[in-house]
Amino acid sequence: MAFPIPRRLLLVSNSRLHGEGYLAHCEEQMRSFFGGKVNRVLFIPYALHDQDAYAKTAREKFESLGYELDSIHESSDPVEAVRKSEAIFVGGGNTFRLLKILYDLNLIPEIRKRVLHAGIPYMGSSAGTNVATISISTTNDMPIVFPPSLEALGFVPFNINPHYLDPDVNSTHMGETREERILQYHEEPDTPPVLGLREGSMLLVEGNKATLLGRNKARLFLRGQTPTEHEPGADFSFLLTSS
Amino acid sequence: MAFPIPRRLLLVSNSRLHGEGYLAHCEEQMRSFFGGKVNRVLFIPYALHDQDAYAKTAREKFESLGYELDSIHESSDPVEAVRKSEAIFVGGGNTFRLLKILYDLNLIPEIRKRVLHAGIPYMGSSAGTNVATISISTTNDMPIVFPPSLEALGFVPFNINPHYLDPDVNSTHMGETREERILQYHEEPDTPPVLGLREGSMLLVEGNKATLLGRNKARLFLRGQTPTEHEPGADFSFLLTSS
Repeated sequence: MAFPIPRRLLLVSNSRLHGEGYLAHCEEQMRSFFGGKVNRVLFIPYALHDQDAYAKTAREKFESLGYELDSIHESSDPVEAVRKSEAIFVGGGNTFRLLKILYDLNLIPEIRKRVLHAGIPYMGSSAGTNVATISISTTNDMPIVFPPSLEALGFVPFNINPHYLDPDVNSTHMGETREERILQYHEEPDTPPVLGLREGSMLLVEGNKATLLGRNKARLFLRGQTPTEHEPGADFSFLLTSS
Repeated sequence: MAFPIPRRLLLVSNSRLHGEGYLAHCEEQMRSFFGGKVNRVLFIPYALHDQDAYAKTAREKFESLGYELDSIHESSDPVEAVRKSEAIFVGGGNTFRLLKILYDLNLIPEIRKRVLHAGIPYMGSSAGTNVATISISTTNDMPIVFPPSLEALGFVPFNINPHYLDPDVNSTHMGETREERILQYHEEPDTPPVLGLREGSMLLVEGNKATLLGRNKARLFLRGQTPTEHEPGADFSFLLTSS
C-alpha cells in the first residue's frame, strides 16, 4: 500500500489524563505539530452527543494555544468546511457514532483528500484516532449505531487500540482483557497489526516516519506473534509499509 | 410488540465465575430450565475461534447434568440441525463473530422459528445472551468482523449488557465506564431499555414472565431515566411489553 507524501498525523490515545485538563498532556506535541503556519483548526465533534458543549471545550483549549477553532457542526456545508480546512482535529467519544456521521455526511473522501493529497495536519484523540486508521475494528466502544462499514479513513495501514489497558491482576471480573480481545481480532484471517496506545501515549506520523511520543510505553500486536513493548521515542515507521 | 407464546429463555451474564468451573454457578437453574423432557441440546460455538475445544468443554458440562450435546459446527447441515433441535445453547465469545456467522449460515430465521413457534428452550451465555435480544448494540466486544446488521434474534424487545461492571472508584483510567457507555446508547433516539446483568446473574423468561435469577443485583437503564437496582427474584415482565 503506497501512501502519497505528505501525510501528517498526531494520533493521541486519550484527551484527558486523570487529574489533568483537556488535552493538557499533549500540549507540547500539539504546538510542535500544528506549528506556526496553521491559523484555524477544523474541529469534528460528532463522536459526542452534545456537540455545542464539546466545541466550546475544544475551542477554549485551541485558543489557549494560539489557534482559532471552527466546529464543523456549526457549518451549513460540512463538505465545504473540510475542503477549506487548514488543519483537522477529531475528538473522542463513541467511535461508531463518529464513523457513521462521517459516512452519512459524505466526509470520508473529502477528509482523505485534505490529509493525503493537500497534506494538512490531522489530529485525532481516542475515537478520532480510531477513525484515522484502517478500520474501527479495535475500538473499545459499544455499537450504539450501525455505520455502513467498519472501514475508516485509512491514513495508516494498521489498527490502533486507544486507552490501551493492562490486565488488573487483582480483578475477579471474568470479561475478556484488552489483550484477549485484540488476540481474538488476530484469530480472523488477514488482520493487520494493532498498536495498543496506553493513556498518555500518542503516535506522530510524518510522511513515512512514525514515532511514539508521550509518557507511556505502547504494546504492539502482530498477528501470530507474541506482543511486544515499545518505549516512547520508538520508531514505528515499519508499520507504515505493512499491509 | 406481541410475542407468541411459548418462549423459554435462560439468558446468563457469563459462563464462568472467578474461581469456579464452566457454568458451575448456574447449574441449578440449568437443571430446572431444561428439565426432564430434553434429551439433547444443540450447542452453537461460533463466538469462539476453536470450536472443537469449545464443544468439548460444553459437552462435558451438559453430560454431567444428564444431557447429550450436539455441536452445530459438527453438522453438515446447520439449518437442519436447528430444525431438529430440542433445545439450544449459545456460548459466549465475540458477539460480532457469532452474529455474523448466524447470518452467513442463514440460521437467524430458523432459530427464531424453533424458539418462538415450537417453544424449545434457548439458553445463552454472554455473547449468546446478547444475540437473543433485540440487537447487539450493548455488547462489550470489539467489532472484529462486520455482520450485515446489529439486529439480533429479538426474543426480547430490549438490550442486555452482560458482564455488567460497576465503576472502579480507585481507577485512574479515563476510558468510559460501562454506565457511561450505556447512557451514550440512550442518547440515540428510540433506543430500548438496557438490562445490565452483573456476573453471576441471569434472566429467566417464560412466556410473558421475566425473572432475575442468580447471585447478584441487576442494573436497569431506561432511556431518559435514572438507572435502578434490582435484587435477584425481581420481576422484569414489564420489559417484555415495552418496545
